[in-house]
Amino acid sequence: MGDAPVKFTLGERDIPTHWVNLMADLPGDAPPPLRAGRDGVLEPAGPDDLSPIFPMALILQEVSGEPEIEIPEPVREAYKLWRPTPLFRAHRLEKELGTPAHIYYKYEGVSPAGSHKPNTAVAQAYENAAAGVKKLTTETGAGQWGSSLAFACRLFGLECEVWMVGSSYDQKPYRRSMMQTWGATVHRSPSDLTQSGRANAQHPTGSLGIAISEAVEVAAQNADTNYSLGSVLNHVLLHQTVIGQEAIAQMEMAGEYPDIVVGCVGGGSNFGGLTFPFLRRNIRDGATTTFVAAEPAACPTLTRGVYAYDFGDTAGLTPLMPMYTLGHDFVPPPVHAGGLRYHGDSPLVCALVKAGMVQPRAYRQNETFDAAVRFARSEGIIPAPEPAHAIRAVIEEAEAAREAGEERVILFGLCGHGHFDLSAYDAYLAGQLEDPEFSEADRDAALAALPEAPALA
Amino acid sequence: MGDAPVKFTLGERDIPTHWVNLMADLPGDAPPPLRAGRDGVLEPAGPDDLSPIFPMALILQEVSGEPEIEIPEPVREAYKLWRPTPLFRAHRLEKELGTPAHIYYKYEGVSPAGSHKPNTAVAQAYENAAAGVKKLTTETGAGQWGSSLAFACRLFGLECEVWMVGSSYDQKPYRRSMMQTWGATVHRSPSDLTQSGRANAQHPTGSLGIAISEAVEVAAQNADTNYSLGSVLNHVLLHQTVIGQEAIAQMEMAGEYPDIVVGCVGGGSNFGGLTFPFLRRNIRDGATTTFVAAEPAACPTLTRGVYAYDFGDTAGLTPLMPMYTLGHDFVPPPVHAGGLRYHGDSPLVCALVKAGMVQPRAYRQNETFDAAVRFARSEGIIPAPEPAHAIRAVIEEAEAAREAGEERVILFGLCGHGHFDLSAYDAYLAGQLEDPEFSEADRDAALAALPEAPALA
Repeated sequence: MGDAPVKFTLGERDIPTHWVNLMADLPGDAPPPLRAGRDGVLEPAGPDDLSPIFPMALILQEVSGEPEIEIPEPVREAYKLWRPTPLFRAHRLEKELGTPAHIYYKYEGVSPAGSHKPNTAVAQAYENAAAGVKKLTTETGAGQWGSSLAFACRLFGLECEVWMVGSSYDQKPYRRSMMQTWGATVHRSPSDLTQSGRANAQHPTGSLGIAISEAVEVAAQNADTNYSLGSVLNHVLLHQTVIGQEAIAQMEMAGEYPDIVVGCVGGGSNFGGLTFPFLRRNIRDGATTTFVAAEPAACPTLTRGVYAYDFGDTAGLTPLMPMYTLGHDFVPPPVHAGGLRYHGDSPLVCALVKAGMVQPRAYRQNETFDAAVRFARSEGIIPAPEPAHAIRAVIEEAEAAREAGEERVILFGLCGHGHFDLSAYDAYLAGQLEDPEFSEADRDAALAALPEAPALA
Repeated sequence: MGDAPVKFTLGERDIPTHWVNLMADLPGDAPPPLRAGRDGVLEPAGPDDLSPIFPMALILQEVSGEPEIEIPEPVREAYKLWRPTPLFRAHRLEKELGTPAHIYYKYEGVSPAGSHKPNTAVAQAYENAAAGVKKLTTETGAGQWGSSLAFACRLFGLECEVWMVGSSYDQKPYRRSMMQTWGATVHRSPSDLTQSGRANAQHPTGSLGIAISEAVEVAAQNADTNYSLGSVLNHVLLHQTVIGQEAIAQMEMAGEYPDIVVGCVGGGSNFGGLTFPFLRRNIRDGATTTFVAAEPAACPTLTRGVYAYDFGDTAGLTPLMPMYTLGHDFVPPPVHAGGLRYHGDSPLVCALVKAGMVQPRAYRQNETFDAAVRFARSEGIIPAPEPAHAIRAVIEEAEAAREAGEERVILFGLCGHGHFDLSAYDAYLAGQLEDPEFSEADRDAALAALPEAPALA
């Protein structure tokens, strides 16, 4: 290593001034989201379908075709609390793998909530506060998103009310404490505060689908309350593109450009945030980077799902979205990468996979934790289980570079730390980590629930 | 706030090249540590007393009078994994307090282990590895130090064996998992692996004193094994002075110099690391900064202890050290700031308090958590309970500046995050946090155990 730089650090003046809207670059017209009209016939969903629960500024971002959207100054001010995030060269991991590849990682775990989620949480809280909204509701599973929104609401003087999936509420009290420390109100879902909650009292451990329904119901019924979503939607991925833009500047500092960019995918916001600025260079400037989307084999949306219209939530309250899906009532096994347990995926990311511009790969839980521990033992940072999937793919690529004897440049997104996931590491180290499979029978059962809708090309 | 900078960021070239040894600046000769000679008479402890468990390079640092000591290149390389750490201007906290004071904080929670402890852990692991040692032993309470040493040993190819206080081992499994993720072996103390452990089988919950004895015993008995301590000793504080040196450079970037520097004090390594470079400016260059050492009222070593020779450990295995002490068998109540539950303090810090160059202050647990929550809700980062004591003192100073109508510049050390302390926040927010007092009777009982030794001036 010697004098070789390890960490590429930008100043706060280098925080991007605009978000990158990849909608402007996609080939052809994206299939629109659909909703049932008055007569039950499906028709394109428009801004009015979203206005009861989202402010107009975010709806306009959701449907915008502009290539860049300016970041409001108060959002950039909030970003200064943790951005720019560092980019590291993984010299020690390279040495451990004996690879000629140059491995870089962009680390989002330095945010107060410990992941990339605050990048969109502060943008959403700001636009809601600017629109005169007083309170945001949301759901959370393991708590990454809920804690990020609690933090963001505090910064912009909003109340925050979170429905936390019952089983997580009971088993992971620390993320709940984090939300409460930032002043949020946290309800165990299903709660008796909503019709959706009371109707599901027979499912006491709850589900993300029920929690979404509770949060949306409260937002829809109260004029001064809106709902906030942490992934999947276009505007959420848009806000995350600060990650990739900073990474481009930092790779320039390193004097390299990635041959391969790897990110994990759940709803797609981490993946889109890192890759979209690089993808634009492929599309517009003739760059030839390969993009790899890493997902869990227990919830293999991109690798084994179908490309079809499906609901975004289990209860079927959202418009139908064009995406790879395992069926909206698929309940993935309880792998520790809670942020990747989603039956569908961002329509933008799915369109890129469909177009062959992104390669999806699926990894089993034990091989993922093996990669995470190798990373922690060489680079120090203990990764969250979600980005550990990206690390697994990176090791695969680094080994391929060694076989080929090629000095490939690999960049991946380390989107969060694993400080709240150590019980999973404990199970892995004790040889007691489950390694659920997804069978053809699972797939058939999961896909049986797809709603009737036009086929996608 | 507008365009005012929030974060002052250095590049890795700005990592200090030397540690600051404040021994060279102290007025008069420091009283030496003492040990019992062959005839039982106390005499100054020398390097030979330490060589069975420490490598000579660290012993020489321990007794050095040189004003600066060069940082070995491999240690600076390891520092690059997280250093330089950021310095923040707390604009949002200032606004919340309505104070004209300018508040800055140096944040050490970005290290892989989440605190300042790795600054010395990597230096100690390097020197031991360079001396041909194969394994380091240590004790840990809540686990901050054990996890830092586990991480550092991994970087330098050493085995690491940690005796963790039994009650913490049972109640705080995540810090144990962290150590194991980095490859350390963790024993519940008292263990049946040592004489000290077997002799204390009747104290199943263990204590730091017992754990130290176990770790020292194993190190003393094995030629290829040394012991490592995370605070108190001169060389440990020396290694931490990278913090204060970076902070000086970052305050220059901000165009200010602190009127007041605040740190929390347990064994003194965080406090010394931040303040010594600034204290040197007071001593040599006529700066007039005030230094405040914040400690828990439940373990008020500096504010209510006596300045006397005492053992560093409960069992009385160490040399006698000149320090403020509550008596070496004082067992502080179980406040959540586990890192501040030490009966004594660094002899260097104690000498500065004795000389009137550092002002100690003690704070109760509830007022400390109140300060921590106010900080988290304005600045985002959730602080560990230890630096929350410093935040409490900062709020006091900021309010005094408001009363005086003076634009005072305050800097404090935010030496770690609270990701593993959220159960304490939970108790505080629920109004169930205990608030133990330290009475005159406690003090009399605690001080009764002081060993016979020469009085200190």
